[in-house]
Amino acid sequence: MRDNLTIVKVGGNVVEDEASLKSLLKDFSRIAGYKILVHGGGKTATLLSEKLGIESKLVDGRRITDLETLKIVTMVYAGLVNKNIVAGLQALGNNAIGLTGADLNIILASKRPVGEIDYGYVGDIKYVNYQSLNELLNSGAIPVMAPITHDGHGQLLNTNADTIASELAVAMGFDYDVRLIFCFEKCGVLMNEADSSSKISEINPALFEQLKKDGVVTDGMIIKLSDGFAALNRGVGVVVITNPAGISEGLRGTRLVLE
Amino acid sequence: MRDNLTIVKVGGNVVEDEASLKSLLKDFSRIAGYKILVHGGGKTATLLSEKLGIESKLVDGRRITDLETLKIVTMVYAGLVNKNIVAGLQALGNNAIGLTGADLNIILASKRPVGEIDYGYVGDIKYVNYQSLNELLNSGAIPVMAPITHDGHGQLLNTNADTIASELAVAMGFDYDVRLIFCFEKCGVLMNEADSSSKISEINPALFEQLKKDGVVTDGMIIKLSDGFAALNRGVGVVVITNPAGISEGLRGTRLVLE
Repeated sequence: MRDNLTIVKVGGNVVEDEASLKSLLKDFSRIAGYKILVHGGGKTATLLSEKLGIESKLVDGRRITDLETLKIVTMVYAGLVNKNIVAGLQALGNNAIGLTGADLNIILASKRPVGEIDYGYVGDIKYVNYQSLNELLNSGAIPVMAPITHDGHGQLLNTNADTIASELAVAMGFDYDVRLIFCFEKCGVLMNEADSSSKISEINPALFEQLKKDGVVTDGMIIKLSDGFAALNRGVGVVVITNPAGISEGLRGTRLVLE
Repeated sequence: MRDNLTIVKVGGNVVEDEASLKSLLKDFSRIAGYKILVHGGGKTATLLSEKLGIESKLVDGRRITDLETLKIVTMVYAGLVNKNIVAGLQALGNNAIGLTGADLNIILASKRPVGEIDYGYVGDIKYVNYQSLNELLNSGAIPVMAPITHDGHGQLLNTNADTIASELAVAMGFDYDVRLIFCFEKCGVLMNEADSSSKISEINPALFEQLKKDGVVTDGMIIKLSDGFAALNRGVGVVVITNPAGISEGLRGTRLVLE
């Protein structure tokens, strides 16, 4: 009998607005069993960049990361956002520990090769150190992962938080029954962005292709769904896209299925 | 027979200049046995504040921390500086883990009461969770502490890095023989700031009083020495003030003694 592990990736407006973050952390703190929180922070990073006169460039939902931008995302993701989440969870009696991929060498990545687009200091994940995460979980700690990794040679790298959540889910699947939850401000994937009642209950790979073709899902949502399907294909049991309320309400939202 | 634990506090110019940081990390990585690194980052915080048009206020070497400044020090200390140190140590084969006091509830603090001066979101340390630090050390991890603590109710607090190093040294003294090293850009406490050959080899409490009276030590150095003597008085075996080279050269520098 394997233990359950719930991995919640939270991003977008949820984590960067004080009130919605508070509510998310309450929902997260009520999850029973082993759990990991993975967060983004892109909007705050964009805002800080603006204040500092540095232009933010995104291509297909991915941030072009020059050296100045790397400093900003390291400050915002690993510092401001991560530590506020950790302090908030501690206040709720959850023994959180904030981590990047560099800490305990949890996630080793390599700088993305320059192809058509030069993404700069963006990391593609090579290896998840599931043993160290396992030790932390077994000691009662609740890892809170910022989307920063490293290359093992001293270079920090910006890495998509959805991809980190998906890769953690796959790696931890050796030891746990993993539920992967992508949590954002909407109740699921919507047929019509403006209509929250247009939630799609289930998406299989064929429907995903259709939704991309029809332009219903774009940019960041394509990454999220691709990462979700990749996780399902590599043994993760449950992948759901929902909002904070959906976590506490028995995992309502959009469920990804393989058939 | 108790194990040795070396706690190195590094600040000032050492940690914020790329070349000197690299050299410090090499010296630190060579320290045998259990070790903890505590760092500052004040100059980078001041620089970022300037760029954002936020005024930095220091009183007697301590930073007045309003909410905007708290965000900045959280970004700089817990994000930028901490994670670059962690990635640098990982590259040297040291299994570093970056922490604030909020992570694993390692350091619980309370917001300093408003007296003559309102320091804002500055934390006075109430408790060091030496058990969690001990577990990390025993698992082979090397804690890298940023000078941010929390109050247990969700509030992050700015806390002097020298004081954190000193309090950690005292708390860990229950289980280890602790050496506390304050590492900065000079070879020790100097009689004459401009003359590196004027290093004072030993300072006892009487000489400390004299040096304060004569204005030889001021501001931040007074905090450092006060924290150092507090640690000695509470059972820490060795307290030394030195530069990175002094660490590898058999702990040369200024040694604090009680008599």
